[in-house]
Amino acid sequence: MLALTFAIATVPALASEGSGHGDPAAPVVLALAVILVAAKFGGDLATRIKQPAVLGELLVGVVLGNVSLLGLQLFEPIANNQFLDMFSRVGVIILLFEVGLESTVSQMMKVGVSALLVATVGVVTPFALGYFTTRALLPAHSVYVAIFVGATLTATSVGITARVLKDLEKSQTPEARIVLGAAVIDDVMGLVILAVVIGIIGAADRGTELQISEVVITLVKALGFLVGSLVLGVWLSPRMFKIASRLRANAVLLAFGLGFCFALAWLADFIGLAPIVGAFAAGLILEDVHYKDLKDKEDHTLEELVKPISYFLVPVFFVLMGMRTDLKSFAAPGVLTLATALVVMAIIGKLVAGLGAVGKGLDRLSIGVGMIPRGEVGLIFASIGMQLTVKGEKVVDQQIFSAVVVMVIVTTMITPPVLKWTLNRRR
Amino acid sequence: MLALTFAIATVPALASEGSGHGDPAAPVVLALAVILVAAKFGGDLATRIKQPAVLGELLVGVVLGNVSLLGLQLFEPIANNQFLDMFSRVGVIILLFEVGLESTVSQMMKVGVSALLVATVGVVTPFALGYFTTRALLPAHSVYVAIFVGATLTATSVGITARVLKDLEKSQTPEARIVLGAAVIDDVMGLVILAVVIGIIGAADRGTELQISEVVITLVKALGFLVGSLVLGVWLSPRMFKIASRLRANAVLLAFGLGFCFALAWLADFIGLAPIVGAFAAGLILEDVHYKDLKDKEDHTLEELVKPISYFLVPVFFVLMGMRTDLKSFAAPGVLTLATALVVMAIIGKLVAGLGAVGKGLDRLSIGVGMIPRGEVGLIFASIGMQLTVKGEKVVDQQIFSAVVVMVIVTTMITPPVLKWTLNRRR
Repeated sequence: MLALTFAIATVPALASEGSGHGDPAAPVVLALAVILVAAKFGGDLATRIKQPAVLGELLVGVVLGNVSLLGLQLFEPIANNQFLDMFSRVGVIILLFEVGLESTVSQMMKVGVSALLVATVGVVTPFALGYFTTRALLPAHSVYVAIFVGATLTATSVGITARVLKDLEKSQTPEARIVLGAAVIDDVMGLVILAVVIGIIGAADRGTELQISEVVITLVKALGFLVGSLVLGVWLSPRMFKIASRLRANAVLLAFGLGFCFALAWLADFIGLAPIVGAFAAGLILEDVHYKDLKDKEDHTLEELVKPISYFLVPVFFVLMGMRTDLKSFAAPGVLTLATALVVMAIIGKLVAGLGAVGKGLDRLSIGVGMIPRGEVGLIFASIGMQLTVKGEKVVDQQIFSAVVVMVIVTTMITPPVLKWTLNRRR
Repeated sequence: MLALTFAIATVPALASEGSGHGDPAAPVVLALAVILVAAKFGGDLATRIKQPAVLGELLVGVVLGNVSLLGLQLFEPIANNQFLDMFSRVGVIILLFEVGLESTVSQMMKVGVSALLVATVGVVTPFALGYFTTRALLPAHSVYVAIFVGATLTATSVGITARVLKDLEKSQTPEARIVLGAAVIDDVMGLVILAVVIGIIGAADRGTELQISEVVITLVKALGFLVGSLVLGVWLSPRMFKIASRLRANAVLLAFGLGFCFALAWLADFIGLAPIVGAFAAGLILEDVHYKDLKDKEDHTLEELVKPISYFLVPVFFVLMGMRTDLKSFAAPGVLTLATALVVMAIIGKLVAGLGAVGKGLDRLSIGVGMIPRGEVGLIFASIGMQLTVKGEKVVDQQIFSAVVVMVIVTTMITPPVLKWTLNRRR
């Protein structure tokens, strides 16, 4: 029974293991066990204090990730394990696919104008606020520093919001669709902003002009992906499932559904967008009517089949996100003033964005709050800034970077309780 | 929306990516999409020629993995990707957990004597056959070579058999339980044999005697794990679920069920056994009555919740297993005679083992066939042998290693069709 994980091609790697198995999966599944059970205790606590479960998962992660401050190095290997990182990445892809499945392309189109306006206001306002705040607080730094900090405040991290909406069973409201749609458009804008900012700084460093053509190409590729995948996807999906329904194999629906989601996630990444944008688009495209034959044959909808996979992998994402929250960032010297200012600007910038939504009776406050969380993009921007120089001066130094980290942590952590409050305040 | 995969602790790693995301999950999910869809086409083909679906998954893997022979390097990155390897390892853990869930500890105890006899005969016979065959075919080599080759023929790789039994809905028959139980015992014996063989060869190389104490410790640890986990697990499981049922969170049953499975898989590996032995034991231990409260609350059994996860991850294991089958091994010079002899001995050895089952009306041929597949253990043994020397002579050379690889491939590939035939021949 030993015998399973069969690795003819990789046998030399096994040879070093000596007696026994030393299966590389062993530490990974142990960590998964810890994460899954801890997530439920965190979710329980959050539910008892009437908060979305995801807040509990984040907090249990923060606790596990920061026990090292007490001198216990117990969970460090989990936070930085590349395999758990991969499970968490696939987890958030599954989450956005699941959220996408709850809506259709035409439902999203109905809120398209609102989403576009919310996204645009939500990019311009935080950028401007971040720019002027940095100019005011760091007058000795170059203008490029302010441009970079402004850029880090633009892009929404929709994972948290998507999860809160699911926890509260609100993901099919117009407000939820506007936030999700705006986040997709945000991602496209973030891509373009990054191209512009890097272009400007590169040009300044070389003393040349910004090359506008590359920026245009980036924009065209991203928009082409979104429009192309939605149009082509809606045409392709029923045809794909028609072929799939002829296959004499079990669980064909899940295999093709996940296959479609994963393929679009890859394509989005290939274009330069986040994989979750592709996964969300895939979810929007696939509809029950496309796979009616398979649903009848296998007696389950795609949502029902994806749910247990989501139960398994999604908590890995949020607990790990919590574990990677380095509380020491808050104590970095000279960071607190800038960090506080950035947090305030980040929040105001997106609350203003909520006002961009058009339509009667919309809960614009919740839309704005849903857009608040920042995440990887801000960090990617900041870390790119750390590597860029203009005339020998680093664009982003350690102090600014820590302030951005704090901004990301705070906007992530406050969203679940605040969103829960705004969504339920009218009852 | 960019913003998701949040990696405060690992930011420096992101900085090198330049514009766009370059999410490391992108190539992995693309490969998963290819594997999932290919698996269904393979399963369809197998079903049409009245074979278990798993044979189709293996064969589609062999085709994808060997197109490089035609000069196409298309799928090489999949076969050797460490993340896909990890998904496949978790997949086979899930498979054995699922199979374990279909039986109970007491049902396994009923076939305990048969399983023990089948395992014992199934270790002794192939060892003896392998030993004498090697002595006859390679008379110039030392006696230690023959001992090593004998050892590579002993351990069963039960993943294939478990999957065939599931495909044919036979996993709850007494024959299935005997095979699965014997495979568990096999794993313990394999561990002891490895310790003994390495001890003998080390002693021969040093010119000293075999240290028997280490072998005894290995055996005691392995048996202690099996008995301990079953006894303690049956006591622990209802208590664990009682606590779990008080948690106010969703999907608690799946989190605790998987957590239990993963923890035992880790523990098995820690002792020196295969993780799948632990996962199978976990499945045996957990029973519906232990979590009646949670089942009523969440309206699903653990089997129902695990199934979609299994649909997702199990094909990854079998397609990857196929992809790693290097057809070039068959063409290695001077290998074919030894390889053919080993295949014949491997098969006869386990068919004889089937006769060890006690009880009326048992299908002993199917039991023997179910024990035929060899896998990783044989390869681990062989690759350890390649690193050992006795008085300067390598115990296992490249030619013998290739013969073992061929033996593993053939025993794996023939099992699905032969087992299907033997199981259905009485109808």
